[in-house]
Formats: sequence, structure tokens, C-alpha cells
Amino acid sequence: MSVIPASLARVIEAFGQLPGVGPRTAERYGYYLLRADPMKAKEITEALTKLHQSVSYCPKTFALIESGQKLSPLYTNPKRDKQIVAVVADPFDIMALEKTNSFFGTYHVLGGLVSPIEGIGPDDLHIAELLKRIDEDNVKELILATNAGVEGESTALLLTQAVESKKVKVTRLARGLPVGVDLEYADQITLTRALEGRQTL
Amino acid sequence: MSVIPASLARVIEAFGQLPGVGPRTAERYGYYLLRADPMKAKEITEALTKLHQSVSYCPKTFALIESGQKLSPLYTNPKRDKQIVAVVADPFDIMALEKTNSFFGTYHVLGGLVSPIEGIGPDDLHIAELLKRIDEDNVKELILATNAGVEGESTALLLTQAVESKKVKVTRLARGLPVGVDLEYADQITLTRALEGRQTL
Repeated sequence: MSVIPASLARVIEAFGQLPGVGPRTAERYGYYLLRADPMKAKEITEALTKLHQSVSYCPKTFALIESGQKLSPLYTNPKRDKQIVAVVADPFDIMALEKTNSFFGTYHVLGGLVSPIEGIGPDDLHIAELLKRIDEDNVKELILATNAGVEGESTALLLTQAVESKKVKVTRLARGLPVGVDLEYADQITLTRALEGRQTL
Repeated sequence: MSVIPASLARVIEAFGQLPGVGPRTAERYGYYLLRADPMKAKEITEALTKLHQSVSYCPKTFALIESGQKLSPLYTNPKRDKQIVAVVADPFDIMALEKTNSFFGTYHVLGGLVSPIEGIGPDDLHIAELLKRIDEDNVKELILATNAGVEGESTALLLTQAVESKKVKVTRLARGLPVGVDLEYADQITLTRALEGRQTL
């Protein structure tokens, strides 16, 4: 005889599939929802039911859009410069850049980074669509905004090679010391990059 | 204009209500489910929908039971000794004790621990029902299996006083060194308890 009621066990199992959620955490979520107002569980189920129905990808930029939208408003907005394209790995990277309030170009989501370990090759990314956009929108600058890890770097290199024949300026986000971090706490690679990218005052 | 589609934002907000889940983690869950097979989101919604419908509390022991069951099988099972009752704070504590495979009495769930900070007083716990059970089932031993923190200790003290007039032996789980922990890493209170509870070989 099981000590946990089957329906609670099922909730725990379902939560256990979320990234980074182990059996203990899943138990905690399940038990919390059981004790809490049933409205909380209902909020989650209602939100999840609509998730896949009403979110899709912009066919041009691969940013997330609402169902009903044809293209991402970040692309169609006339105030955004279509000739400057920030290339990011995931739709959520767009959020991070938008929060800066200092980028007014458009975005292109690759849908991941090249990763031999995870079996993600160049053909799994939206590179062909990017090349097409460069021609169609007469793109002048491509800002490679992939992260600073191995996969981000190799994807950036791959993209640089892919657009070599096009007349487009390729830039990347500066690497260096994050604001507020002491020199002594910076890792060697970051410090090396900060030295390489030093600027004249 | 929001960068995240409204339906995804709603999922993130709903997950953010789970204990210990901050905005970043909620975003991670939401985005993971969006990219994953829609079946995963469906598994969670289906499990959650049935949660409150099919789980309830045993009116005798306050353990979790399936709908359709009148009493907890851990109570009705004739192999379990109704005269020995382990008193625990939460239904999940039963799981931990059952995993030991070395307890064959029955359980009584208090539904929490006395906590002035959280506003939980003796009247919020299932103490009256425990006193009734002691008489009805002619309980001989009450094992106080509350945890070793301040709230567990004060609840244990409260229970000891509450059953003082009854002819029932009150015991509590031994405090001491956990198996596999080096003496030098044990905290002072645990070590003090281990000394106090030392046993003759």
C-alpha cells in the first residue's frame, strides 16, 4: 500500500519533469498546492492549458508572439531599425536586452547554440532565415549577442563565417568587467577580455 | 508593449506562487514547458485538476487518503498496532517513518507545529482528536515524532502536558548523532543531546 494518495503522487511526478526539480522539490510543490486554496492549482492549470494554444513563433525573427499576431511587434514597429539585427540564442535573451532600453534595432532568434554534446548543429538553428533577412532588409549591422561561454563563442564564429560574403558589419557584445564587480573577484578569462578590449579615455 | 506573450507571462506568474520559486525559476519552468512537448504541460494540468478532488484527510489520523477511502489504510490495517501512536506534524512525515520499515503502530497528524510567529496555536492542531483517540483505542504509547527544532520541541512539551492526566506512556524520537556524520561536524546541541542520551553497551 502506498503512503501517498495516487493523485498526489501523480502531481509530484508531473512536477518532477520540470528542469532542476528533484523529488524533494516536487513533493514540496505538490504538498503546498494540496494545502493551499484550490484556486492556486486552478490558476496553474488554466495558465498551462492556454500556453501552447496562444504562443507561437514569429516566422521572421523567431521571437515569441501571441496567437493572432503575424509578426513580432518588435519587428513590425516602425521605430525599430530593421537594418540593425541583434542575434540571440533564445527568445528570453530578447527580454534581457529590452530591459536595457538602449537597443532600437530588431532581433533574430537562433533557437539555440551550436552544441556537439547536445547534438545541435548549424542546421538546427535559424541561420538560413537570417541570411535571407540580411538580403531582404538590407541589414547593415549584425550584433552577435550570444553568451560568453564556449557554445556562444563557437556559434558567433560560425555566424561570422556564414555572413562573410555579405556586405554586413558584424559586431559582438563587449566582454569585460561587469559593473560593480571588484577586479580581484573577476575570473582570468573575463580579465583577459577586459584587457584586450580596453578603451582610450 | 510587453516582450513576453501574455499567456506565457501568466504561466510564469502562476508558477511564481509555488514555495521557493522566484521570477527566474518561474521563467525557466514556463519557457521549458513552452519548448517541450505539449504533453508535459498537459500531464501537469491533468494531475493538478484531480488533486483536490481525490485527496482528502482521514478523519481519525489526519493522514492523506484517496477519495473513496473512509479512513487511512495505515489505521485500518489489522497488522498495525492502534495502541501505539506516532504523533507527527505533517502527513509527509508519515512517509519518512514508513520508509524505515520499522514502525508498525499507527499515526496521528497534528497538522502543523505550535508557532507564535506564524500564528499557529494549540487549538489549530488536532490535539482534541488525539485525546479522544487515546481513550477510544486505549492507546498505551505516544511517540512524539516532531522535529528537533524549537517549534517541534515546544509542541512536544505541550502534548506532554495535555496527556498528563491519561495513563499513556509518552516517548520521543532519540536525538543524537546521525549515522555517517563525523563527531567534529556535529553541532553543539546535537552533541549535547547525544551525550545526555548515551546508552550502556
